Amino acid sequence: MVNNTESRLAASGIELPPAPAPFGAYVPAVQTGTLLFLTGMLPTVGHEPKFLGRAGRELNAEQGRRAAYAAALNALAVARQHLGSLDRISRVVRLGVYIATAGDFSDHVTVADAASELLRDILGEDKMSSRLVFGVQSLPLGVPVELEVIFEVSA
Amino acid sequence: MVNNTESRLAASGIELPPAPAPFGAYVPAVQTGTLLFLTGMLPTVGHEPKFLGRAGRELNAEQGRRAAYAAALNALAVARQHLGSLDRISRVVRLGVYIATAGDFSDHVTVADAASELLRDILGEDKMSSRLVFGVQSLPLGVPVELEVIFEVSA
Amino acid sequence: MVNNTESRLAASGIELPPAPAPFGAYVPAVQTGTLLFLTGMLPTVGHEPKFLGRAGRELNAEQGRRAAYAAALNALAVARQHLGSLDRISRVVRLGVYIATAGDFSDHVTVADAASELLRDILGEDKMSSRLVFGVQSLPLGVPVELEVIFEVSA
Repeated sequence: MVNNTESRLAASGIELPPAPAPFGAYVPAVQTGTLLFLTGMLPTVGHEPKFLGRAGRELNAEQGRRAAYAAALNALAVARQHLGSLDRISRVVRLGVYIATAGDFSDHVTVADAASELLRDILGEDKMSSRLVFGVQSLPLGVPVELEVIFEVSA
Repeated sequence: MVNNTESRLAASGIELPPAPAPFGAYVPAVQTGTLLFLTGMLPTVGHEPKFLGRAGRELNAEQGRRAAYAAALNALAVARQHLGSLDRISRVVRLGVYIATAGDFSDHVTVADAASELLRDILGEDKMSSRLVFGVQSLPLGVPVELEVIFEVSA
Repeated sequence: MVNNTESRLAASGIELPPAPAPFGAYVPAVQTGTLLFLTGMLPTVGHEPKFLGRAGRELNAEQGRRAAYAAALNALAVARQHLGSLDRISRVVRLGVYIATAGDFSDHVTVADAASELLRDILGEDKMSSRLVFGVQSLPLGVPVELEVIFEVSA
């Protein structure tokens, strides 16, 4: 199997940000065997939150989508930093999308799809993930979205 | 080791529903090595929510249990669809039970046990899972329960 | 590789509590291959909650830290019970810190670091985890913190 992820990314014109640095006593990613577990990815730029608030209260679903997209770019940046090349990703095993929401918010799918669609478009349809999505009470720094990502990678 | 899961299920009289189809850009299950990660399972029937509301507010613990049970049936349906036979499940590695709750709800164990007990009764006591349970702010479609399931499966 | 976790723990003067018993139809830990998945660890002592309330409401961040620390001690106790010796832990693959919070709480990192720092100090800097942290609506028994832990272990 040949992966064209890096060339697909280059052709897309999307530029990955620098991989985010930890805010505490943990590391950005841990690989065990062929599984790469990422730290929860936030919509940050340069160690600062790029979005603040909750979906269904301060933010609408479209703003939530932009936050999910920004967090997914950070996930790709961390993966590349750890792996050297995104071509080593053979599957997205799990994508978790945890959205800070008001109590009556129910449009989680719309927000989460912004992250799923980016990963699908860059990594390929055959790498599509299982997915967990729920609305949380609060997130670190006050951001609206956090992503959990587990990749399957080649050795 | 011989697994009698399918015959135990048949003897129980429980019928699995059709496996739920995705609501967005993801797949129902991803297998990596001997681990099968399911997408978050909701108490849906035919792409519609079967239960709506939060435990400790619109719903009581018993209604939450029925929702957890319905979501666990969907988990078994997805596993069978992916594996061909439930006899290939050698262990429930992780069961996560994420319950939409009021802020003062504390009876998570009662709700979660409805899913755990179904899996134990169908798969066998020796397959019992580790478990994560917490109360979330909101869930997709407005349902009261979402399940995370990771199975260990034979090749 | 030689692990000195048990001797480091002994030298620290920290005593692990008895491993907590399940509250429902699950087991404290499941090992699959070289991965050990723990059940969600709560700040309990002797099957009773040691802390109650939410960070940013009934509890401040420092009290949240003490709860996270107590839950991390329980995680080490369960790991030792399952593995025989903490020296068999080769890595903390994932640490999840799920904190019951008020809606406007944003200091998750401070609370979560209490668990991360204990694990780092006992297991060693080279075992540091990836991390997921978010604020939940409610937790079992009304406690303020629940930990998700996945260890990589030697056979």
